[in-house]
Amino acid sequence: MNLTENLAGTKRTITRATQFVNLKGDYGTSDFVMWRGGRLSKITVAFESWGKLSSNHDNVILIFTGLSPNAHAASSELDPTPGWWDYMIGPGKSIDTNVFHVICVNSLGSCFGSTGPEAINPATGKAYRLDFPDLTIEDIAKAGHHLLVELGIDHLHTVIGPSMGGMVALAYALQYPGEVDYLVSISAATRALPFTLAMRSLQREIIRSDPAWKDGNYAEDEAPYSGMALARKLGLVSYRAAEEWHQRFDRSRVAKDRRTGAPFELEFEVESYLDYNAKKFIHNFDANSYLYLSRAMDWFDVADHGGSVNSGLTKIHVKKALIIGVTTDILFPPEQQREIVKGLEKAGSCEECVEYVEIDSINGHDAFLVDSHQFSPVMKQFLDETCQ
Amino acid sequence: MNLTENLAGTKRTITRATQFVNLKGDYGTSDFVMWRGGRLSKITVAFESWGKLSSNHDNVILIFTGLSPNAHAASSELDPTPGWWDYMIGPGKSIDTNVFHVICVNSLGSCFGSTGPEAINPATGKAYRLDFPDLTIEDIAKAGHHLLVELGIDHLHTVIGPSMGGMVALAYALQYPGEVDYLVSISAATRALPFTLAMRSLQREIIRSDPAWKDGNYAEDEAPYSGMALARKLGLVSYRAAEEWHQRFDRSRVAKDRRTGAPFELEFEVESYLDYNAKKFIHNFDANSYLYLSRAMDWFDVADHGGSVNSGLTKIHVKKALIIGVTTDILFPPEQQREIVKGLEKAGSCEECVEYVEIDSINGHDAFLVDSHQFSPVMKQFLDETCQ
Repeated sequence: MNLTENLAGTKRTITRATQFVNLKGDYGTSDFVMWRGGRLSKITVAFESWGKLSSNHDNVILIFTGLSPNAHAASSELDPTPGWWDYMIGPGKSIDTNVFHVICVNSLGSCFGSTGPEAINPATGKAYRLDFPDLTIEDIAKAGHHLLVELGIDHLHTVIGPSMGGMVALAYALQYPGEVDYLVSISAATRALPFTLAMRSLQREIIRSDPAWKDGNYAEDEAPYSGMALARKLGLVSYRAAEEWHQRFDRSRVAKDRRTGAPFELEFEVESYLDYNAKKFIHNFDANSYLYLSRAMDWFDVADHGGSVNSGLTKIHVKKALIIGVTTDILFPPEQQREIVKGLEKAGSCEECVEYVEIDSINGHDAFLVDSHQFSPVMKQFLDETCQ
Repeated sequence: MNLTENLAGTKRTITRATQFVNLKGDYGTSDFVMWRGGRLSKITVAFESWGKLSSNHDNVILIFTGLSPNAHAASSELDPTPGWWDYMIGPGKSIDTNVFHVICVNSLGSCFGSTGPEAINPATGKAYRLDFPDLTIEDIAKAGHHLLVELGIDHLHTVIGPSMGGMVALAYALQYPGEVDYLVSISAATRALPFTLAMRSLQREIIRSDPAWKDGNYAEDEAPYSGMALARKLGLVSYRAAEEWHQRFDRSRVAKDRRTGAPFELEFEVESYLDYNAKKFIHNFDANSYLYLSRAMDWFDVADHGGSVNSGLTKIHVKKALIIGVTTDILFPPEQQREIVKGLEKAGSCEECVEYVEIDSINGHDAFLVDSHQFSPVMKQFLDETCQ
């Protein structure tokens, strides 16, 4: 294992529990060759891990994240702060770290330690910015696979991913058939459809329209914060569902003493909530990373792996798959979950081994972060059965 | 009648069929007093009309528009270009101009001839811009009422409005009980809920974040076009439904020869469609008008007329009401249509006189502009019955 302190993006939230591996090119060649032809001569992959690796390496669960989280999915002794999926991962929890060796990867192209647009390009000594090659979901999966090779792990018990992470999990199972026993895809899709493409395209255009973006060449402390805040707000609108906001905020107003009197200032509590969350986000995520990862989600299409979505899905060979959708998800709606299920079933390689659970929740695309009481037992039962 | 050539916003699409009335203050007083306390000393209201006014003035239909259209709802001899509701209004059509005298009003605060932020403030000789007083849906209804007073019409056969126009129609019926026989509200609401508030708030913030906005003081030919385009795109996303875009665009790409190669350029047909429509819009709508009208929709709440939505609705006294909703409308969803229906039914003044039609369409909030085959017969039957 080749751990390093070579942080790609030192400003970001990278905790003491984060580990790093420098990859040595593309399985022995000098470059990591990307899905759309770009090359990276040096890659660092940041990750966290929990639980002990079994002697025969048969207990590894690999987790890919959504667009914005880092690798800190759960707390640990090294970093006791709650992770983004803390209710799910830990000793005795649904993803039981007494049983499994769990690894969560910071996506290639992100900004929490893995190589991305903010990292130094060895060829120039400067940050890549828009010289970072075209990034795809397939590349993120491949960087995760490289990491495992470096760690001496040649087989996964389970690959798991929510949202973008679910796309990466699908891409992983597609690209490395026979190397994954179980697959869990949560609120993901085989490809994005126009409403979702439009929502993400708008977020990217909002960032690009911020003069501070400067074609990606913004100064470290003069990032396109205004554009990022607006993009994040629009993202949040798409991650949540109308009914939950109705129940939480209705038409409540921000208290008069919290208003500035500026023209067209924010006035409703829902606006204030978005503003608070956007401002928390913008100083801890790189704008160019956001653009690259967002576009990677738009580009992903299982049909690229076989001419059609269904023939692509036939390339996935796992013992069993768990597909979870949420009734109120407008970004990757239940129909798109059922499409994965039907495709895997049709594939035949996986007969009677696709489990579909549709969570009835008002929390939309973000339900996997919120509805612990619904997601925990589903995950626990699935993983328990794999151990029987 | 006091027609005038005093165009408030000469750059805009104001056709030869547009008529203008200068209001003489607030029913005899010197100022038009607005719902939130502001005052306008001089108001022009632009409108178009079709069909003959009956001798006893009992055949008048007043139409209020959505946020962005002008008063050109239908073609006429003076302006044969199709109006925004051309399939609905005309001789022998559902809103039959052989029977009715139809008037469509350009909303107060808009930019197609009626007084708005772009109009000249008589007190300063300069455009109002952000000195335009706080605008509400109630004010838009009142300006329509003033217009009728000027035209010598003291009673409406029917008030009709889709989208924002439906809110205005509700406000009209609320404010002038006994002066309206029939009410038609299409894809409107008694008040906006948080998802819709957020979508509109974001549009306004995107415009305000464009440096070209300059706190509303942009030069005539240097308007915040970039912000307006992004806001319009976001608006369009909320006006349409995911399934229709899926059927129309799927994941089709823009042809290579239409691409520029710029980083993160638009690539999918859905992005190109939004871009085309946004660019058509931005040079024909005033950014400050957009802000005022958008906020007016957020502010509108029937509960302001009686302490609660239901007690507000009891103030509406009409012979019959037609409420139309669309299954896939995410902006003003069917639940909000049924809320109007139940409220009017509970009001008791209107027993067995509320008709609700839920249009099963994939065209979302914009269905009233598209699904002529579904909307036409519903409107025709309703209006025919009022004449029996």
